Amino acid sequence: MNIRLYNARILTMEEGKDIFLGEIWIQGEKIIYVGDGSETDSIYEQLGIPCIIWDKEIDCNQNLLMPGFKNAHTHSGMTLLRSYADDLPLNEWLNKQIFPVEAKLTAEDIYVLTRLAILEYLTSGITAAFDMYLTPLSIADAFDDMGMRCVQVGAVNNFSQSLELVEEMYEALNHKSSLQSYMLGFHAEYTCSKELLTGISGLAHKYHAPVFTHLAETEAEVAGCVERYGMTPMAFLNCLGIFDYGGGGYHCVHMTSEDIALMKMRGLYAVTNPASNAKLASGIAPISDFLKAGVPVAIGTDGPASNNCLDMFREMFLVTGLAKLREKDASAVDAMEVLKMATVNGALAMGLKDADVLASGKLADLIMIDLNQPNMQPINNIPKNLVYSGSKQNVVMTMINGKILYEKGTFSVSETPETIYREAAAVIERIRKA
Amino acid sequence: MNIRLYNARILTMEEGKDIFLGEIWIQGEKIIYVGDGSETDSIYEQLGIPCIIWDKEIDCNQNLLMPGFKNAHTHSGMTLLRSYADDLPLNEWLNKQIFPVEAKLTAEDIYVLTRLAILEYLTSGITAAFDMYLTPLSIADAFDDMGMRCVQVGAVNNFSQSLELVEEMYEALNHKSSLQSYMLGFHAEYTCSKELLTGISGLAHKYHAPVFTHLAETEAEVAGCVERYGMTPMAFLNCLGIFDYGGGGYHCVHMTSEDIALMKMRGLYAVTNPASNAKLASGIAPISDFLKAGVPVAIGTDGPASNNCLDMFREMFLVTGLAKLREKDASAVDAMEVLKMATVNGALAMGLKDADVLASGKLADLIMIDLNQPNMQPINNIPKNLVYSGSKQNVVMTMINGKILYEKGTFSVSETPETIYREAAAVIERIRKA
Repeated sequence: MNIRLYNARILTMEEGKDIFLGEIWIQGEKIIYVGDGSETDSIYEQLGIPCIIWDKEIDCNQNLLMPGFKNAHTHSGMTLLRSYADDLPLNEWLNKQIFPVEAKLTAEDIYVLTRLAILEYLTSGITAAFDMYLTPLSIADAFDDMGMRCVQVGAVNNFSQSLELVEEMYEALNHKSSLQSYMLGFHAEYTCSKELLTGISGLAHKYHAPVFTHLAETEAEVAGCVERYGMTPMAFLNCLGIFDYGGGGYHCVHMTSEDIALMKMRGLYAVTNPASNAKLASGIAPISDFLKAGVPVAIGTDGPASNNCLDMFREMFLVTGLAKLREKDASAVDAMEVLKMATVNGALAMGLKDADVLASGKLADLIMIDLNQPNMQPINNIPKNLVYSGSKQNVVMTMINGKILYEKGTFSVSETPETIYREAAAVIERIRKA
Repeated sequence: MNIRLYNARILTMEEGKDIFLGEIWIQGEKIIYVGDGSETDSIYEQLGIPCIIWDKEIDCNQNLLMPGFKNAHTHSGMTLLRSYADDLPLNEWLNKQIFPVEAKLTAEDIYVLTRLAILEYLTSGITAAFDMYLTPLSIADAFDDMGMRCVQVGAVNNFSQSLELVEEMYEALNHKSSLQSYMLGFHAEYTCSKELLTGISGLAHKYHAPVFTHLAETEAEVAGCVERYGMTPMAFLNCLGIFDYGGGGYHCVHMTSEDIALMKMRGLYAVTNPASNAKLASGIAPISDFLKAGVPVAIGTDGPASNNCLDMFREMFLVTGLAKLREKDASAVDAMEVLKMATVNGALAMGLKDADVLASGKLADLIMIDLNQPNMQPINNIPKNLVYSGSKQNVVMTMINGKILYEKGTFSVSETPETIYREAAAVIERIRKA
């Protein structure tokens, strides 16, 4: 498909580049032109083609085009457990409500539940997810079938998956389709034996590959690791060589200044999950400290059982709002910094180096934001509007890999929402009765 | 207009009443029937009418009808200043950015800017606002002209308005229209002389009326009052007799246990503004302590300069999310409690005793929530879905005083959004140049 988006405000997210009025041309999966449209004559020459026959030309009415949000930590299949159990202490929630249900899930169930999450991602302008869950192959099928980009990460621990499976998926899913990739990872220090962690480190060294994991989410997790190994999780995992080729941590709430320095030294990403950390009373991550230390921060929703929604606008407000509370400083973590976390940093953390900004040659993963809604008016400052007053209601188009999958409330995916809702409800019905 | 809403899930917000499938009948400004629709024969008899000719019958497709949200603290006219100045320390923000701009606003400007806020309230399912701002008459005109319910509150301080104006507005706006009312109030202890505060107390006693004010929003405010009078703001205002007929405080972030006990004793409402308190780094209000003490809590967005949006879904998540963080307890302040704050408690704080729940004889101020969107699926628990994963995107109808003012993204108000945006932009343009 050749698509021309014109009469748009464009926020490319390239460093130092202001919003401008112009157009974006898309050919197949890629962006082939971003500019003000004035150089039309020379563009064809530059592209080495005589002309383009457009399949679709969209007047953006001066609404905003920007890179899609990257959800840099989630467990998509947990849609099943949204509002299933809330307002409970963390241990009770996990052991009495979440784990027993998860034990009953089949790969086909997770396929269905992941598709439900994908619908929600599209409504929130999320164009790629960094997904850690139980059944990598059916998860990849769900994303492929819906046309959404996904980077999966190993979820191995003492109770599920295995080093062999992680390696097998690393080989398989990095070659499955242009929408899928896979990174090394494990659930968390506190759910993995030292032997298993050593094995992960072996894989990192074998493939020269980054590794991601849940890191320092709760005080109890850190205290447990100190008791077991005399070190914080960050220090311990670093000693094992797990992060010798980079990677990062999800949550990163309870970090010492030494931990943060280690993250910087290893080139790690801190993926923050503020709604989940609030709802589960885990704490507020030290975002300002990461920024001061030069550790790049990305943003994830975490899974819908602990959040309970998959809404990047809520996360963006929380990242800065909670940082301001933590630092007692209304100037902490400004809006542009947050937008960078939600787009560029997320893409880079996930290894999607071609999905970071809007530019010629980059992947056509982008969204349109309706500025003609009351919460976006007046247009004093668009980045601040996005972070402080934006809502998923403002997302009027979500394009992934050059395809428009969501437009003005309507999905263009392989299955109707009604069917997905019905299938998800059937899974829940069966599991409740089991 | 006679309107019948049928095939709906109904959350009346009456104490202890579960969600049920049924219908709601509206005649003029009032609800005349809420039930499962099975007693159709006896309803007419009961109502003493032979039949109703419906102007409109709406199939709700089993979506949810519930009372509209009550925004129990806002400064609507501050839409002008959304994203105008953010990420600044509080003092610099107020003194260098906000106050100089406000000094240039005319009553007509505030009329325009208030209408912009009203559009946003409607998109978020807010059916009444508790508004404190500069020009009460033009604000009342804006709400009347748009068809929205508003309770204004006195904003007198040493620099603007006067006791005489507050009394005059108390007389005038409580008789202007069925949509408007007015309560006694003043800006805050720290902006009012002791003489002025004594005058407010005199009005409270003259009218046997409740009084509302900004209360203990920041640490500095409390410390200043202690230095001035040797007492916290709550204790000092109580000594002056200001709360002898009830009322309440906006923000209420920095409260001692004695302050909370005084609130309970005087029957005051704590109106919490979590997004504003986060964005301005003011702190987290002690919501769990209010609940334990039996102090009813309502929820407000505060003005769009300090928030920056007027979105009750964001506030609801923050009320419980921040309480869970503050208490380090994931079970703190459950979803149903939050819904009660956003509806019933708000209405009662604002003196809207007929706009609290959905029942026969109550005002037809209600909203429809689309449950057929991915963030509301699966339907494990609707109240939890609303608070933890709900979004203004789910609001598909907002009805105030029996009139549908917003339906599926389209406004039915006296002015087009485009005109309101253009007029608001013109105000900003003029003030920037001035």
